[in-house]
Amino acid sequence: MRNEKASPKGDAVVIGVGAETGLGAALARRFAREGLRVTIAGRTPERLRVVAEQITAAGGAVSVKVADAANEAGVAALFDEADSDGAVELVAYNVGSNVAASALETTPELFERLWRQNTFGGFIVGREAARRMAPRGKGTILFTGATASMRARPPFLAFGAAKAGLRAVAQGLAREFSPQGVHVAHVVIDGVIEGDYAATNFAEYVRSKGADGLLAVDDIADVYWTLHRQPRSVWTHELDLRPFKEPF
Amino acid sequence: MRNEKASPKGDAVVIGVGAETGLGAALARRFAREGLRVTIAGRTPERLRVVAEQITAAGGAVSVKVADAANEAGVAALFDEADSDGAVELVAYNVGSNVAASALETTPELFERLWRQNTFGGFIVGREAARRMAPRGKGTILFTGATASMRARPPFLAFGAAKAGLRAVAQGLAREFSPQGVHVAHVVIDGVIEGDYAATNFAEYVRSKGADGLLAVDDIADVYWTLHRQPRSVWTHELDLRPFKEPF
Amino acid sequence: MRNEKASPKGDAVVIGVGAETGLGAALARRFAREGLRVTIAGRTPERLRVVAEQITAAGGAVSVKVADAANEAGVAALFDEADSDGAVELVAYNVGSNVAASALETTPELFERLWRQNTFGGFIVGREAARRMAPRGKGTILFTGATASMRARPPFLAFGAAKAGLRAVAQGLAREFSPQGVHVAHVVIDGVIEGDYAATNFAEYVRSKGADGLLAVDDIADVYWTLHRQPRSVWTHELDLRPFKEPF
Amino acid sequence: MRNEKASPKGDAVVIGVGAETGLGAALARRFAREGLRVTIAGRTPERLRVVAEQITAAGGAVSVKVADAANEAGVAALFDEADSDGAVELVAYNVGSNVAASALETTPELFERLWRQNTFGGFIVGREAARRMAPRGKGTILFTGATASMRARPPFLAFGAAKAGLRAVAQGLAREFSPQGVHVAHVVIDGVIEGDYAATNFAEYVRSKGADGLLAVDDIADVYWTLHRQPRSVWTHELDLRPFKEPF
Repeated sequence: MRNEKASPKGDAVVIGVGAETGLGAALARRFAREGLRVTIAGRTPERLRVVAEQITAAGGAVSVKVADAANEAGVAALFDEADSDGAVELVAYNVGSNVAASALETTPELFERLWRQNTFGGFIVGREAARRMAPRGKGTILFTGATASMRARPPFLAFGAAKAGLRAVAQGLAREFSPQGVHVAHVVIDGVIEGDYAATNFAEYVRSKGADGLLAVDDIADVYWTLHRQPRSVWTHELDLRPFKEPF
Repeated sequence: MRNEKASPKGDAVVIGVGAETGLGAALARRFAREGLRVTIAGRTPERLRVVAEQITAAGGAVSVKVADAANEAGVAALFDEADSDGAVELVAYNVGSNVAASALETTPELFERLWRQNTFGGFIVGREAARRMAPRGKGTILFTGATASMRARPPFLAFGAAKAGLRAVAQGLAREFSPQGVHVAHVVIDGVIEGDYAATNFAEYVRSKGADGLLAVDDIADVYWTLHRQPRSVWTHELDLRPFKEPF
Repeated sequence: MRNEKASPKGDAVVIGVGAETGLGAALARRFAREGLRVTIAGRTPERLRVVAEQITAAGGAVSVKVADAANEAGVAALFDEADSDGAVELVAYNVGSNVAASALETTPELFERLWRQNTFGGFIVGREAARRMAPRGKGTILFTGATASMRARPPFLAFGAAKAGLRAVAQGLAREFSPQGVHVAHVVIDGVIEGDYAATNFAEYVRSKGADGLLAVDDIADVYWTLHRQPRSVWTHELDLRPFKEPF
Repeated sequence: MRNEKASPKGDAVVIGVGAETGLGAALARRFAREGLRVTIAGRTPERLRVVAEQITAAGGAVSVKVADAANEAGVAALFDEADSDGAVELVAYNVGSNVAASALETTPELFERLWRQNTFGGFIVGREAARRMAPRGKGTILFTGATASMRARPPFLAFGAAKAGLRAVAQGLAREFSPQGVHVAHVVIDGVIEGDYAATNFAEYVRSKGADGLLAVDDIADVYWTLHRQPRSVWTHELDLRPFKEPF
C-alpha cells in the first residue's frame, strides 16, 4: 500500500511511531516533507493509519508496517520491503518505552520488556540498517536517547539500564560503521516531550513548566533532519536536547 | 553441605565463580579468609567443587550452589538459603561473559545471551541482595565492570551494551539503596585478568604485557574487600583498576 | 570602521579570528552572510583585515578589533562597542591555542599561557556576553572545544587542562544562564580542521586522512549557525563533530 | 627542623595542610603513622606548627615548609629538600580553595586565584613529583578532587573550572607516567568534609546531614593510604567518595 510520489529522493524508515502527537510521527512527517518515501512502523495499526493519512494528505509518500522492533525476522522483512530498491538512506529508532518503578517493584518481566524494546530492538534495527548501508558507503541511523541514558536513577532503574544499553549500541555501531560511511548518532532527549502523553500523564508538571518548557516534537524532528544532512567531514555522534529551563 | 566454622562474622555470596584461577574464586577465598561464610555460585559443579575444597582446606566456611544468575526463582532460593539467618553482608556479582564479534556477526541470540548473563543477572542478584539488606540498614553489593562498561567498541558491541546496562543497574541501585545503608559499588576492570583464561586465549598478548602487565586476581580481591570495609561516611561507588602499563 | 548594511538582523562577535582559512574566519563569514553585523577579534591586525575584506566584498557588515581575549578591560570595551545598540545576539569563542609538549617540557609559562588563552579568555568573554544577554532574555554563546576537552593525554597535558577548564566554563554558564534565556553550547571538535595550519604543520597526516578526513571549516560553521537557530524548547548544550574516519 | 625517627620507610609530601581538623593534616598524620617522614606544606605557619606538633607527639617524623604551591621555584626547593635522599614515595596535593559566587560576581581575579591554587599548583607539584619519581620507576601522586571536578554548577563556576583543570592534570600525568611506574590518582570528594570549616561555615547543613553525613577526614586518609599501597598490577586512577546519604 505504498503511496508513491514522483521522483522521491530515497527512503526513510521510522521505527516507533505511535500517537500522532508523538516524536515518531513528527519524524515521519518531516522526512516525508523532505521528499523521502517513509516506512513507518509501530505496534498499533490505528495509530499508524492516522499518521499515514496525515502524510498522504500533505503530499508525502508513506508505507505502514505493524512490527515489533525486537523481532529479528519481522525487522528483516520490513527492511527487505522498505529497501527493496536499495534506497533506504535514513533510519530512526525511536522506541522509548518507560515505566516508573522502584527497584523492588521492578519485576524481571518489566526489566526484560524495557530492555527488549529499547536496547534489543535498537540493536536489531541498527544491525539491519547497517548491513544494508555499509556496502553502499552511505546512510544515517539515528537513535533516540533520554536523560536516563547517561544516569540511572530511581524510579527508572530498568529504563536507565535499557537506555544505557541502547547508547552503547549506538556507540559501537558508530565506531564500526562510520569509517564505512554510515552516520550513526544518538540524541539525548533531556526533558519531557510535548504531546498527548505528557498532557495526560503529567498534567501538573506540564503546567509548571510554562512556555517552551517541553520539547516540541517538530523542533526535535528538525534536529534529526539536520543530523542526516551533515556532510561526512563533520559528523555528530551525540548531542543533547533540552528545554531552556530544564535543570541538568 | 555447609562447612561451618566457629563464630563467623557473617555471610558472603559470590555469583560467577568459575575456574580456580579466576576472579570469582579469588573473591570467595578472600572473603572466607576474612571469616565470612561464603556461598559460591556458578554454572559448573566441578569448578565450584575445586574452589570449595581450597577454601575448606584453608579453614574457611563455604557452600556451593549451582545456579543461573538470570533465573529469578533460582537466585531467590539461593539467597533464602545463604541468608537464612539474615547474615549476608556482602554480595559480589562477577559474571563476565564476553564474546568478540563484529556487529553483523552478532546474532540476536548472542546479544541476548550476553545481556542475560551480564545485565539481567546483575539486576536479579542486586535486587535480591538489596531486598534483604535494606531493612537491616547495612550490606555491600559489588559489581564487576569492564573497560567496555564505559565505551562500546567493535568487536565488543554486545558485551559493551551488556556491561553498560550492568553499570546502570549498579548506579540505580546505589542511588536508591545507599541512603538506606546499603553500599553498592561498581569496579571497572580495565585490562586483562591474569589466569588460565588469558593464558589460553591470549597467550601472545600476555607475553607482550610483561611483569605486572595483567591484573592479579588476589590484588583485585583486596580492592573488593577494602570496598566492603569502607565506613559509610566515605563510600566509593565506582573505581577503575588497571595494570600500570595499560593505556587508557 | 563599521561597514553598515541596510537593516541587519543583529550583531555577532567572533573572538579568535586568525588565518582566512581558519574556523574563526569561516564563522565570521557565515554569520555575516546570514545578515548579522559581525565584530571579529584577534591578535593579528593583518589577518583580521584580510577576513574583513572578504566579508565586505561579499556584502557583509564587519568591524575589526585587535584584542586579547584574556584582557578584561579590552573585552569589556569590545562588547561596549559591538553591543552599543544592544543587538549582540551571538558570540563565538574560538580561541584554540595548542602546543604539544611532554609534561616535563611543559613550563609553567606554557601551562599558564594555554590556560589564559583557552580557559580564562573563555570565561571573560562568556561573562561579558552573558551579562548583556541575560537581561534581554536571549542570545547565544558558543565555545569551541576539542578532543582534549574530554580526555587529557600526552603530549597535550597543558592543552587538555585548559580545554577541560573551558568546558567547565561553558557548563557553568549554561546552567546559570539557560533558564534566563541565554543559549550556551560547547562544540567538541574531534579531529583536525582543514586549512593552512594543518597543511603546514601536519602535511603527512593530512595526506593520510584522504577525502573528507579533515573537518571543513564551512561545514563546522553551519553547525554553529544551526545551534544559534535552535528554538529554546530544544537547546543543545554539547555535541561532537568529527570526520567519518576519525577513530574515537 | 626535621624530627628524625629511626629507620623510616621513606618520605611523603603533603601540600595543602591547613587546620588540624582538615584533610591535609589527617593525611600527614596518617602517612607519618605508617612510618614515612612527612613534609607538610601550607600557607599558615601557625597551622603547620600545630599539625607538626601532633605528629611529633605521636612519634612521627615531620618537616614544615611554608610554601605557595603555585610558585615553581618554591615547590622545586621544597622537593629538593624533602627529596634530598631521593626517598619521596608519596605526594598528596590537597589544595582545595573554593569560593561561591555567581558568574557575574566572579571577578577575573577570583577566577584566576582559584585556578592558580587548584589547577596550576597541582600541575607544578605533580610535575616536580613526577620528575623525581619517574627515573626511579616508582612513587604515588594523589590529587584531591571534588564534585565540581565532574560538573560545573552555579555558584561554583570558577571552582568547577579549576577542579576540571586539575582533573585533566591528573589524567594527563597518569597517562604519561603510569607506564613508567608512577601511580597517579584522583580522588573525587563528593560531599562535605567534617571539621571546623564545615562546622563554622555550614552549621545548619551539617546538622541536617545527621550521623555519618559528612566525610570523616581519617576515613578519607585511609583511602589515600590504600591507593598508595596498591600494587602496580591493579592501580586505580579515579574513585569517588561520598557519605551514604549524599545524593549523586
